[in-house]
Amino acid sequence: NKQLMIKNKLIQNASSGTYHYLPSMTRSMNKLVQIIDKEMKNIGAQKIIMPCLAPKRLWEKTDRWKTMGSELFKVVDRNGAEHCLSPTHEEAVTSIVASDSPISYKRLPIKLYQIGKKFRDEMRPKHGLLRGREFDMKDLYTFDCTLEDAQRTFDEVCSAYSNIFTWLDVPFVTVEASTGAMGGTKSSEFHLLSEVGEDILYRCDSKDDGGNKTVNNNVRCTQNGCPGVMHKRAGIELAHAFVLDTKYSNAFKAKFIDASGNKRCLVMGCYGIGVSRLLASTIEMNSTKDKLRYCSLLAPYQICIIPQKEGYKSDVTWGMSESLYDRLTDTTNLHDEVVIDDRLHMSIGQRLNQAVASGYPYIVALGKKVAIFPTTLE
Amino acid sequence: NKQLMIKNKLIQNASSGTYHYLPSMTRSMNKLVQIIDKEMKNIGAQKIIMPCLAPKRLWEKTDRWKTMGSELFKVVDRNGAEHCLSPTHEEAVTSIVASDSPISYKRLPIKLYQIGKKFRDEMRPKHGLLRGREFDMKDLYTFDCTLEDAQRTFDEVCSAYSNIFTWLDVPFVTVEASTGAMGGTKSSEFHLLSEVGEDILYRCDSKDDGGNKTVNNNVRCTQNGCPGVMHKRAGIELAHAFVLDTKYSNAFKAKFIDASGNKRCLVMGCYGIGVSRLLASTIEMNSTKDKLRYCSLLAPYQICIIPQKEGYKSDVTWGMSESLYDRLTDTTNLHDEVVIDDRLHMSIGQRLNQAVASGYPYIVALGKKVAIFPTTLE
Repeated sequence: NKQLMIKNKLIQNASSGTYHYLPSMTRSMNKLVQIIDKEMKNIGAQKIIMPCLAPKRLWEKTDRWKTMGSELFKVVDRNGAEHCLSPTHEEAVTSIVASDSPISYKRLPIKLYQIGKKFRDEMRPKHGLLRGREFDMKDLYTFDCTLEDAQRTFDEVCSAYSNIFTWLDVPFVTVEASTGAMGGTKSSEFHLLSEVGEDILYRCDSKDDGGNKTVNNNVRCTQNGCPGVMHKRAGIELAHAFVLDTKYSNAFKAKFIDASGNKRCLVMGCYGIGVSRLLASTIEMNSTKDKLRYCSLLAPYQICIIPQKEGYKSDVTWGMSESLYDRLTDTTNLHDEVVIDDRLHMSIGQRLNQAVASGYPYIVALGKKVAIFPTTLE
Repeated sequence: NKQLMIKNKLIQNASSGTYHYLPSMTRSMNKLVQIIDKEMKNIGAQKIIMPCLAPKRLWEKTDRWKTMGSELFKVVDRNGAEHCLSPTHEEAVTSIVASDSPISYKRLPIKLYQIGKKFRDEMRPKHGLLRGREFDMKDLYTFDCTLEDAQRTFDEVCSAYSNIFTWLDVPFVTVEASTGAMGGTKSSEFHLLSEVGEDILYRCDSKDDGGNKTVNNNVRCTQNGCPGVMHKRAGIELAHAFVLDTKYSNAFKAKFIDASGNKRCLVMGCYGIGVSRLLASTIEMNSTKDKLRYCSLLAPYQICIIPQKEGYKSDVTWGMSESLYDRLTDTTNLHDEVVIDDRLHMSIGQRLNQAVASGYPYIVALGKKVAIFPTTLE
């Protein structure tokens, strides 16, 4: 069985702010998840799965049942009990760790993450996957003994995030941000500078390393001695990192026993990547109006083989296509990365144009001659 | 970074009928997903992702907004629009295919599947993952020209399902079932015979191949000439397969163009595996009251290394553990399958007992001597 193409579309709108991911997009998503999993493993984070439905009593413990306001989707079950569709999982993960509390300091830090669906009842869903009501997040939660340890974990996670964006060739900027409703002591955001971005950042015009979200436009850079002036830019928030301190561990009595035998609240951090937003941004960033382009690690397939249109001698190129497919998938690391465009009622030219527009890194067209087209990023 | 164990628990109750999957369970789940993906690829099925939230108008097209009754979780958004938390995706997937309709018969069959969260507002959630309110399903939807083609697809999918259960050493039985509320012309279920099962099956006492859910107890087997009598058994439904005919394609005008150029409704099938239920069943089936046991393909890790307790010369066995870990993960296909139990404040014996109870297929204890324990299924 060859992987046949059913359509060239990536996503399809399902309702306001929700999308179907079609086969190509699902493959890209899966590749992105693997890249993130690998970097999470490198920092010793363990993957878990938490439910989307969360009971009201859990969110009341931190008062966020009220303070999250109308962005929280609420569900009433057949017994009249209330739940929310989780937009984030600080309460849930802290309740898990609290159930094992107090934890010996020797077992810290603990780092737990998941990659899954999140829900937010957006007032104005827009820009496709950039601002949806149901979206994919990678959320990591960390548990340390002290603020100093939590800061070390913060730096380690930020470095893993930088690796992820570097793998994906995403030219990100990091900005300092206020901790806002999340609470905590420190916060950084990772942004892609983009005209469609909805966040306003201030970047110093004399250097190229970060910025922030609170300094005004046309104000002097805050770094000691820097002669630069801050300028307004639009950014897409791809990830954020918070040192949460003990806000949630205190609410759930999630504690550890220190070296002197005292029980103390765990010092937490939380770290999110907007996975569907990141995927959409990388595609948007690389593509033109007419041509899809992926960073090569996220291309749904690496190679598209196009045999001749049905008719005179088309069975020859069909046979060649199949044997090329078998050789590539059996003997190289391109297993599962090759597709044959078997729409033989269409001319090679038509399919070649579509394949170029679809963003295959390599296309092999088998007509009277064999032509190989690498379609590199421009 | 080694993978450290944070707890031996597999799941943790989050609310009535919902569960957190802790790191070990998440690893097993991931392995099960890979086995299913492989068999789905073998029958040419393509993976997609559909949203959990589905708009009311979609479910009204088939009248299931009403007929699903109180098991359907309903959500009202900030604008007053109604949605459900999808318990299944016939409506959604048919709307996707309909948007590309009419499809040339040459592109059929189309097979689309996903693995993800499903929601059902169960009256009485029970038996942990066996009957939850939020659970994992693999749902496959197929689109053919004729009932005959759909029957061929049905046989092919049932054979893939048999492969999956065989990989997992699950002694399943297939039973004929009524199509019920789902509609359609043919239905089979895959069951694990088990005392905690909630389905009543009737099995012929003179042979060992299947049964059904409609013939009464103590009635003669319906197969021609069979002298057997049907007996009642309890089963856990692990999977089902339906030929749906045109119920959904008709509602959504999902059509194809046949070889004569006529537009006709696509003939559909739908095929589900209760992924979290299957995982829980295989663990339940293999384990004893005191000891977890996995089918080897689903064991979270293959090997646990236990170095000596901290104290006299413990640094020697720690060094040995690390070099064994590195050799196993660098030079074998056990990459990411080895764990070091670094709770050095505990004796080897304590940790060995826990490791045996946790279901590691192999345990290496490094004390004064080295002992290797294969903990095979009994």
